[in-house]
Amino acid sequence: MEHNLAVNQISVGVVGLGLMGSSIVAALLIAGHPVVAIAPLPVDMELAPQRIADQLRHCEKAALLSHAPADYLAQLTVTDDYSQLQECRLVLECVIENLAIKETVYQKIEAVVSPEAVIASNTSAIPISILQHYISRPERFLGIHWAEPAYMTRFMEITCGDQTAMPYADWAFQLAHEWQKEPTLLRKDIRGFVTNRLMYAIYREALHLIDTEEASMEDVDKAFRYDVGSWVTLMGIFRRLDYLGLQDFSEIFKNLFPKLSNDDRVPAVMQRMIDLKARGTQSVQGLYDYTDEEARRWDEAFAVFNQDIYQLAAQYPAVRENQKP
Amino acid sequence: MEHNLAVNQISVGVVGLGLMGSSIVAALLIAGHPVVAIAPLPVDMELAPQRIADQLRHCEKAALLSHAPADYLAQLTVTDDYSQLQECRLVLECVIENLAIKETVYQKIEAVVSPEAVIASNTSAIPISILQHYISRPERFLGIHWAEPAYMTRFMEITCGDQTAMPYADWAFQLAHEWQKEPTLLRKDIRGFVTNRLMYAIYREALHLIDTEEASMEDVDKAFRYDVGSWVTLMGIFRRLDYLGLQDFSEIFKNLFPKLSNDDRVPAVMQRMIDLKARGTQSVQGLYDYTDEEARRWDEAFAVFNQDIYQLAAQYPAVRENQKP
Repeated sequence: MEHNLAVNQISVGVVGLGLMGSSIVAALLIAGHPVVAIAPLPVDMELAPQRIADQLRHCEKAALLSHAPADYLAQLTVTDDYSQLQECRLVLECVIENLAIKETVYQKIEAVVSPEAVIASNTSAIPISILQHYISRPERFLGIHWAEPAYMTRFMEITCGDQTAMPYADWAFQLAHEWQKEPTLLRKDIRGFVTNRLMYAIYREALHLIDTEEASMEDVDKAFRYDVGSWVTLMGIFRRLDYLGLQDFSEIFKNLFPKLSNDDRVPAVMQRMIDLKARGTQSVQGLYDYTDEEARRWDEAFAVFNQDIYQLAAQYPAVRENQKP
Repeated sequence: MEHNLAVNQISVGVVGLGLMGSSIVAALLIAGHPVVAIAPLPVDMELAPQRIADQLRHCEKAALLSHAPADYLAQLTVTDDYSQLQECRLVLECVIENLAIKETVYQKIEAVVSPEAVIASNTSAIPISILQHYISRPERFLGIHWAEPAYMTRFMEITCGDQTAMPYADWAFQLAHEWQKEPTLLRKDIRGFVTNRLMYAIYREALHLIDTEEASMEDVDKAFRYDVGSWVTLMGIFRRLDYLGLQDFSEIFKNLFPKLSNDDRVPAVMQRMIDLKARGTQSVQGLYDYTDEEARRWDEAFAVFNQDIYQLAAQYPAVRENQKP
């Protein structure tokens, strides 16, 4: 397998143009790729072009563009015709987390792309090894997991399934650096990816503290924002332990681990939200309450914050170079 | 109990002038308090004044001061004579996590301060209800838990023990706002405080991923830095769940919680570090390796990063006002 790493020449396909798919399209356009964006749903065919254009304008304001938004849009094809994927060296599947739907999508992709084209899923819920069962050439299939908004985050998990051939994963890993990502490459398809394992450990403990009324939501959020927030972007977890000097942890581990939640069920407070069909900032009802105006402000604040923290992280290159000792 | 909240008039005592104690002294001086700093160890008597002066210069560079460092230092007394604490309305104990030593310190403090003076421990390991056994007037005793560097972090946990009288805790909570903190007030002395519960849930899962070789340290750190880092300072945990829309979590909780680590022992990789007497960035040997130069750069980077993230958090006041709905 030989792939040309001259990024601009590689056509990339994206299937599924919801919020996440659209922001991935924007990220790929900014990286210089011609993009073929497949809208499997009529509503996306209608809304996605505008959404992508809006995102490019957001990027322009954030000084992420070297050309005008229109120049990037000239590289974009939005269509419901899978045959347009024919020249793509990489196709990213971003449809909903439903096996039957994904299976149909993979059949349509494989029917038109070359045998060497890499196919990747943005799934964060279904193991890559399971999705591979629906691919006729599973060695070229892998996970490429983005974070929202895709054009503004450095996070990326590249995950192999049991049948993935490493050259394809290595190629995707290299390409991800061209997209200005800080990718991780998981050779083993662990249940839940790395980031989900960490996140759900946090969610489990935090929701347990609320369910047992040991702390208030406001206090848990404050502690997390102002303690963890003060070092996470710089250090990560293990360098934090190094920074704290390691030696004092033995006693605290022994004392505290047995107190931590080992729940394996849905926490009561979340079950209540699910029963109420609450959708958080998307519905003005959630763990916290929101007016429409507040929900809108949270959306805006998140977009701006992401940009700020992206730039802040970039200010620590000397330290970042030392990340891999 | 009546306390005058004119901050500048309240003398505050600090006992224990290690790294943490010194940075708490600097924070209190900046807030305008006259500070009586007790150095129980001769080495601190010698080193602490310079360390505090250095920290004030660091604050000056960060534009946190309204006067020259010398003006703040004029309000500082460093001594090994506990009787100087006599006029203090609040005394913060910051000595090592050893019950016998803390007991002696509390006896010396209580022998000189007024019956209404509030005494607080910076402990993050010993429950406040247990420390209260060593206080003759336990109702005026509570936990005030700072994060390093104390003059630059918004985090603060105020914790009541079983015998703490609420007016003292409320007074400390109000005072903490004068120190530019975002304090939490825990009326119940839960095992491990809130921030430790969250942190050790993260440590447990992260160390488990390493011990089982499911992921590399570098990948865990990257995932944490670039995923969690991209929202934690803005959102905290529960607002993050709201932002993600709540409804999709039920299935993932059911699938993922049973995969999470429930370890109650010291993880193997940490035990190895403890056996090696590794002290991370303080000893050039840790989970990662460091040259002396790299260790120094990490120290510097952390000091600067803390300042950057402090200022970044301050840029979201409209959102912050909505934190308590």
